[in-house]
Amino acid sequence: MKAAILTVGTEILFGEITNTNTVYLSRRLNDIGIDVMYHYTVGDNPQRLAEMIETSLRDCDIVITTGGLGPTQDDMTKEIACQVMGDHLVMHDDILEFIKNRMLSYKAVMTENNVKQALLPSRCRVFYNDAGTAPGFALARPWNGSESDTAEADRMQWIACLPGPPKEMTRMFERSAMPWLEELTEGCLFYKEIRTFGIGESDLETKLLPVINGQTDPTIATYAKDGECSVRVASKRKTREEAETAVCEMIKRVEEYVGEFIYSTEGEDYPSVVGNKLMSSNLTISAAESCTGGLFGAALTDIPGISSVFDRSLVTYSNQAKVDELGVRLETLEKYGAVSEQTALEMAEGVRQKAGTDIGISVTGIAGPDGGTDEKPVGLVYIGLSLGEKCGGRCLCRKIDRRLKDRQRNRRHAVLSMFDMIYRNI
Amino acid sequence: MKAAILTVGTEILFGEITNTNTVYLSRRLNDIGIDVMYHYTVGDNPQRLAEMIETSLRDCDIVITTGGLGPTQDDMTKEIACQVMGDHLVMHDDILEFIKNRMLSYKAVMTENNVKQALLPSRCRVFYNDAGTAPGFALARPWNGSESDTAEADRMQWIACLPGPPKEMTRMFERSAMPWLEELTEGCLFYKEIRTFGIGESDLETKLLPVINGQTDPTIATYAKDGECSVRVASKRKTREEAETAVCEMIKRVEEYVGEFIYSTEGEDYPSVVGNKLMSSNLTISAAESCTGGLFGAALTDIPGISSVFDRSLVTYSNQAKVDELGVRLETLEKYGAVSEQTALEMAEGVRQKAGTDIGISVTGIAGPDGGTDEKPVGLVYIGLSLGEKCGGRCLCRKIDRRLKDRQRNRRHAVLSMFDMIYRNI
Repeated sequence: MKAAILTVGTEILFGEITNTNTVYLSRRLNDIGIDVMYHYTVGDNPQRLAEMIETSLRDCDIVITTGGLGPTQDDMTKEIACQVMGDHLVMHDDILEFIKNRMLSYKAVMTENNVKQALLPSRCRVFYNDAGTAPGFALARPWNGSESDTAEADRMQWIACLPGPPKEMTRMFERSAMPWLEELTEGCLFYKEIRTFGIGESDLETKLLPVINGQTDPTIATYAKDGECSVRVASKRKTREEAETAVCEMIKRVEEYVGEFIYSTEGEDYPSVVGNKLMSSNLTISAAESCTGGLFGAALTDIPGISSVFDRSLVTYSNQAKVDELGVRLETLEKYGAVSEQTALEMAEGVRQKAGTDIGISVTGIAGPDGGTDEKPVGLVYIGLSLGEKCGGRCLCRKIDRRLKDRQRNRRHAVLSMFDMIYRNI
Repeated sequence: MKAAILTVGTEILFGEITNTNTVYLSRRLNDIGIDVMYHYTVGDNPQRLAEMIETSLRDCDIVITTGGLGPTQDDMTKEIACQVMGDHLVMHDDILEFIKNRMLSYKAVMTENNVKQALLPSRCRVFYNDAGTAPGFALARPWNGSESDTAEADRMQWIACLPGPPKEMTRMFERSAMPWLEELTEGCLFYKEIRTFGIGESDLETKLLPVINGQTDPTIATYAKDGECSVRVASKRKTREEAETAVCEMIKRVEEYVGEFIYSTEGEDYPSVVGNKLMSSNLTISAAESCTGGLFGAALTDIPGISSVFDRSLVTYSNQAKVDELGVRLETLEKYGAVSEQTALEMAEGVRQKAGTDIGISVTGIAGPDGGTDEKPVGLVYIGLSLGEKCGGRCLCRKIDRRLKDRQRNRRHAVLSMFDMIYRNI
């Protein structure tokens, strides 16, 4: 099956908004084995919108639109969809009731415009909106592409119209549009995202070649983002259980090849994985940061409830702060420098002792873009880990030497390495 | 003038990459008064690419493509552009020389594929690539839209082909494509971005209505992003000087209406504005963070060289840490709670005294989504500011009560408020 994704909205053409809906829909359609052939964006203009739907349906089975379902004059996707697909709008009483209740829960007044939102094509499949008022829908017509032959007389093609706000769109897609697509494609889809750290995308792909090659279901795709790589494993089978079993079996195979780099097979990010592990094991933690400036603490405290195990992070940017706050010895700083294994270890040990936590983690490095020397180049980072008795009572240090000038990437990588260091040692 | 933006690349259709190029180009074309009518994305398929270029040129004067200029088999934008525009590829010796030098500087071997990159349409305008090897170009043909009349016999239409990697694309656009578009549209473009904090987008727009209404040049557009709003002022005039003068005069008018919310008229973000102000005034700073978990220090240390004024940030998540590290009094915590004006002030004063800096800033609040009470709801944040003698020797506190459950947005807003608090008081 072939699909086009059509975004409706002048604000997208102005560049006011990044089109994240299209990325989301592309992935989900690919997951289920539907080939995305085109992305289109048009403004709130009836003629161009109608043309684009027709263009999409020339060689696609499905066109999915986002946007233009709101209650204002600009919003015309429903009308144009009817025009192209040969249908007309009628009042759907159940939807009207739904919208009334929704407005009531918002404590908002029901306007004439809201009533209009209950007008939908007469023979459509309705998608309820859990996060807003505008319902979506899917509507079919017989295939009328120019290349259709007699054998295709029964073939249908569809338009599915979803709202523009990403929160509403994704919820409606997952709860209503996806089950409809699963019916259409006669299969159930299940996927998981494996997250890795410490391996590049091309390396990962090479190591996984024996698994990827010739593999049609489950599909395996690698993605690189923000210094990490993830592997998406998706399967489409007759039942959800079969698809889930196939995905889980494939994940086991992936683990055989690259298990040492995996930290989650449930799509969680590193701060969540480590934070949850600390909370469930009731291990307390404190941090001493230099080059990351607070990014580690910021990432960890993104997790609600982390206050039960996270005590403090001391961002000691100056040498004086390292001495004052962490008890790093002046002679260590003088002899080895602030960016050294010795300083990292004293920082980790210092903060753990001071805070009385089970774990102390530290980082010191040269984030760049300037400030490096031949001996200590930009990108050099040391991570110290001090483990109290409950965790085996030892101190470790990891050296990272990436020779990369990019300050942001060096800092982000250092933070991920801190989480990795904790994850691999507790 | 009307334009379409055409993205070439199967990886976009797979949803592997977010299409940021299109957002960028849309804004820049709007700046210069070119109406963007369509966004299209197609895969690396010659027939569909040719069709999409033809579709774009049916009612647009310009189609700008990104992607498909690389050295591999997949890359076919040049060939297809020639086919549609009625030209053929020839070897450009100056480009060949340029690519050779580029490869030399990369210490990379020049391959047959790299040689092919010097093949460009015979009558194109070449755009050099400062950040990669693939050159871009612009190519014209007589207007052949179906609606053209005799008066339009001389009218031309264009394709401009730019590389896909955003870094290469944006540089090439600014240095080569923009001057070409300025020639085409017979004008020079100048724009500035005004950044504000503490006002919502609809409020901002309402306050600016007297300036925006009926305004055609300079154009004024508001954008909301990450808890802030910015105002983009763009002018297109005969010379760059005229455009710059018009923009600067308009900025003065904008300042009359919303000056109190503006912190930059040069498009800089708040951490940079505050960081640079601290560095140029040689004012040292330390911070005490609670609910932001390190985000303030992380934002400030994103600025290279900030170590000359930033000493430390103490992320005191637990009450014990607030007592240990900042000398907050137990009775203050017991009587007023950790989230209170009194605690915020003691935190700011405590860290400033301890670090011996000119400025001490603190934050304590309930980021959510849970943990609020009727008296102290989620979203309640106090920011403390302690100023040493050099800054007038006083202490201030700001209370923020947003009643918002979103943890990330509350944290981000708290950090921006800290920068705002410093900016407005030094």
